[in-house]
Formats: sequence, C-alpha cells, structure tokens
Amino acid sequence: MTANIPLGPGPEFDLLRAIVARYGQMSAGIGDDAATLRVPDGEQLVVSTDVAVEDVHFRATWLTPNEIGFRSATAALSDLAAMGAKPLGMVIALTLPPRRRAGAEALADGIARAARDFGAPIIGGDLSDGAVLAIAVTVLGSAARPLYRTGARPGDALWVTGQLGGSVLALRALLAGTAPAPGHRMRFAAPRARIAEAQWLAERGATAAIDISDGLAADASHIAAASGMRLTLDLDRVPCVDGATAADAAASGEEYELLIAGPADLDAAAFASRFGLPLTKVGNVASALPGAAGVDALQGGRPVALPAGFSHFQP
Amino acid sequence: MTANIPLGPGPEFDLLRAIVARYGQMSAGIGDDAATLRVPDGEQLVVSTDVAVEDVHFRATWLTPNEIGFRSATAALSDLAAMGAKPLGMVIALTLPPRRRAGAEALADGIARAARDFGAPIIGGDLSDGAVLAIAVTVLGSAARPLYRTGARPGDALWVTGQLGGSVLALRALLAGTAPAPGHRMRFAAPRARIAEAQWLAERGATAAIDISDGLAADASHIAAASGMRLTLDLDRVPCVDGATAADAAASGEEYELLIAGPADLDAAAFASRFGLPLTKVGNVASALPGAAGVDALQGGRPVALPAGFSHFQP
Repeated sequence: MTANIPLGPGPEFDLLRAIVARYGQMSAGIGDDAATLRVPDGEQLVVSTDVAVEDVHFRATWLTPNEIGFRSATAALSDLAAMGAKPLGMVIALTLPPRRRAGAEALADGIARAARDFGAPIIGGDLSDGAVLAIAVTVLGSAARPLYRTGARPGDALWVTGQLGGSVLALRALLAGTAPAPGHRMRFAAPRARIAEAQWLAERGATAAIDISDGLAADASHIAAASGMRLTLDLDRVPCVDGATAADAAASGEEYELLIAGPADLDAAAFASRFGLPLTKVGNVASALPGAAGVDALQGGRPVALPAGFSHFQP
Repeated sequence: MTANIPLGPGPEFDLLRAIVARYGQMSAGIGDDAATLRVPDGEQLVVSTDVAVEDVHFRATWLTPNEIGFRSATAALSDLAAMGAKPLGMVIALTLPPRRRAGAEALADGIARAARDFGAPIIGGDLSDGAVLAIAVTVLGSAARPLYRTGARPGDALWVTGQLGGSVLALRALLAGTAPAPGHRMRFAAPRARIAEAQWLAERGATAAIDISDGLAADASHIAAASGMRLTLDLDRVPCVDGATAADAAASGEEYELLIAGPADLDAAAFASRFGLPLTKVGNVASALPGAAGVDALQGGRPVALPAGFSHFQP
C-alpha cells in the first residue's frame, strides 16, 4: 500500500500518508500496529538501530533533505553489511519539527533511494513532532552465519574496503564553512552500505567484521577487544582518498566501509573487478596475553600512536 | 554480557557500558554492529518502532527518569500486544542531552523493568548526543498468526480491555499544574502492555486488534478503515476509570489497552479472573457500503459525534 494507506482521518495521518506515498514501491505493509515478515528458514534475524540527529550527526545546511534521508538509512544498513546479513526491511521513526516539514517528502525520497539501492523495503515507522529533526532507522536482515566482532583469529589478515578519509575531509571543510571537494563531499553525503561486498567476503572466509563508523583505528580497537586479540595496523597501507593522509584516513569516522579479519590470501583483484572497489590488506591479527587485547599502529615500520577515533558524542 | 561489554575505550562507550550495566540480566548480546536472534519455526517476525520525545510525549517534570524509560518501552511493546505477538527482544536508540545524563541509569532501570515485566530482553541499541531527550524503541516479536487491523468481519463484536480515561485525566491535571489522582497518574506513568491478554484473545478467535494509543474512538476508526467495515461504538458501555466520563474515556490516548474485534460470546468473566482486568463489549461490526467505512457512536441509544482522538502531533 502506498498513498492510499488505510488510516483514520487526522493531520498526523495526512503527513504520514504523504511520506508513505513518497516511499512508493519501496514501502510494504505499512499501516498496522506492527509489520510482519518471514525470516528465511535456517537463518538468524539480524537487527540494528541507528539514530541520526540534526546538529549532532549533520547540519541541515550541509545536506539536502534527500541526502539526509539517504545517509541516515544507509548508515543503519551498513550495520547489516558488518554482520554479513542480507536486508529484509527497515522501520523508520521520524521526529519532524514544524520547520522541517517542508522537506519531509524529499527526506522520504532519500530514504526510499537507500531502500532501493540496498534492497531493504520500508515496512513500518513512527512519526512524531519534536524540537529537532531526528531519524531513527532500525534495519532487519538475515544471515545463515552472521559475522561478529568476536571472530578474529591469530594469523588472520585485516582487510578494508574502499578508500578512507573522504568523510573527515568533507566534515573539516564544512565545519570551516568552505565547500568540500566534490569527491570528499560524496563520501560524506552519499556513503554506500557494503551489503553485497560483505557477503562476498563472508563466503570467502571472513572471521570478523565491523563497519567503519568510529574511524578505522577505533573500530579496529573494537574488533581487538571483542576478539581478545592483538591487531597490527600498518598505516602505510591504509587506502586513502586523494588529499587524505594516512592519519586522516585512519581517524575518519562514518566511512561505512568494512574492516574485516579473514584469510591473508583473499583475491583482492577479483573483489575489485566485481565491485569496482579496492580491497586492501592493512594489517594482521595475533594472539594477545590476557588483558592485552588492542591495536598497534605502525608507520614507516615503526610503532606510532593510534590515530584518535572520531566521535560525535563529546561529553 | 553486561557491565563488561567488550568495546574499545572512549567516553561514549563508558556511558554505554554504564547503561548496559543497568539493563543487567535483561540485556543480551549487546556489543556488535547488530543483534542476532532466532524466530521460532513457522512463525512470522513482528516488528514495530515507537519514539518518545521530551516535551512532545512527556515532560521531564511529570515523570521520574525510571518512569520515562518504563513508559517508552511499554508503549512500544504494546504494539506487539496489538498484533497478538510474543516478544523476542527490543533495541533502544537513546538520544541523551548532557542535562539528562544524570538520569541515564535510572532511565535504563525503567527500560529494564519493562523488559522484565513483558519478557522482552534488550538486544541492542544506539546512543547519541542531542538537544532533546528521545527514546526510540523498536520491538521484535513473533506470532504464528498475527492479528491485523484488517481482519474485522460483519457480526463481530468490539471488545476493550481494562478501564479507559485515566491517561487523559492525568494529562489534564499535569497540564493544569495540579497533581493527578494517584490512580490516574499510574495509568499515565505506568501503563501495561497487554501481551498475555492479547494471546488469550487471539486463541479465542479475535479477528482484528489495535492498541489504544490515539483514543478508543480514533483507534476504532483505524480498524474500520483498514477492515472496510462500519463499526458501532456504544459510549454507554465504555469502561471508565473513576472520575472519567464516557467522552473522556473514548478520547483518551496512550491508554495501551486493547480494542479487538471478535466473537460476541467471549468469556469476559474468565478473562477477568485470569488477568484481574475487565473485558467489556463496547460495540459491533457491520459491513460497509463502498467508501462508507467508519464508526458510528451511540449514547443513550442515539447517534452522537465521535469523540475527537488525542494526538500529540499538533500541526
């Protein structure tokens, strides 16, 4: 059902109907107290929630409403990629202040664009008034064998998809009030959820995965802590977008590329050919003494301080 | 995992660890990019999302942080009841302004209380800074045969659980700056998700269900529209809390009681004995001419205007 959603009368429902109309064919079954769907036999449900808040995760002057919608949904879908899961659908809780209602339909268009690009129909949602625009996206997927952060094993290599640093360079320009380079801006405004890439990697023996949301170095720390391993990250090998240093690339958050642990002999050329995206070996995994899980960064063959991660949450 | 959640260092993760520690035994598997769980064989996944925003759904002066957490989670779980679903778990996206951090642990206690009361472990979440406290709760459940709004059939009776009106009377007092009667306040601050009640009703032939969040009259309109039926609502029969008129009771939102369509001969005495809660027949369902789905209200045997629903969303 799309524009003709069978809800009773009322202004809340008019706005909801307008939003659902923009979801168009990417919406399915909205209009009940809850959505229902079937998880494929033998697979586990994979679920994650991610909230994007105006003036915390983005500023309304930096992105179009369409981009805000696309980016919010993509960031959430990236968590399914990190688990090696196929999307089943998503539910969207939208808090929409009066001053942002004019952009509501474009925002819905952006969410629908992400739904289409990554194969995740919009199966439900909630709509609320509120002082600040916020988009809470809960994604649902399934996997026969999900990838966890805990699975890294001694002897694994660390691999990263894509090229890093664009997001932080765009953010730096935006915060300085200047226009980011178009390539950097795209990395910030239109990230990709590496859904298909993650499945390719899972099928070829990936043992652990995380999406790069806090920065490569910080996310490597999460894998190290969860797996109880000592990771080495070679900053000289980190794939950088034009204009980014290795330190930029290792600290840049919200990249939504994947960091995985897995076999040292993955066929990066086949990956690049299939996805048009580099797959780069950036380090390795070794066992840790008790209490000594963590990450060692190397540059020029020497130990260096781990680049600080990137967090919106500034206490 | 509870307090010892294996995340890397950082202030965001310290606060997250403190919150997860308060979830205690009600948390399960938090700490990966996404949570995983199994849906029972042969059942469908049921999912709903619900956001509670400070100064829209509640004011911080009206409720303790523990009550805010409990009420937010319960409101979302009520949508599983409306579908006749058993809870599997929930994910919580929390936007926490600095001025509300002192209450974060009590808020988590309240969420954990709802998780315990209604059997829904907390399996994941997100934590964000932001200008306004907001709690987006996504609930996951399963049902072999979910109850939809679309299922009402000619000849069904309409039944409602509990007694209505307490929520709006409490809200009216709070908005006037006076103290609500304790019984009314409890209906606002500590609603119940009618999970077990809904399963009892589903097993005995309920055809359609909705939880009363917009007000009995408005929610009856949703069932009428979705089922394409003409509903009659007898206001003289609506069960009212002490001090509430029938019009109060029919307009009161956020009651989280259930309105169902189903057999006219349900055993209300057995229901009351089992759950300590009245089950009351309040109307019936008839077929509608095309385009004429809707609700007729009666009082003293005469047609009256349908009491206006209750909406936080004031355009």
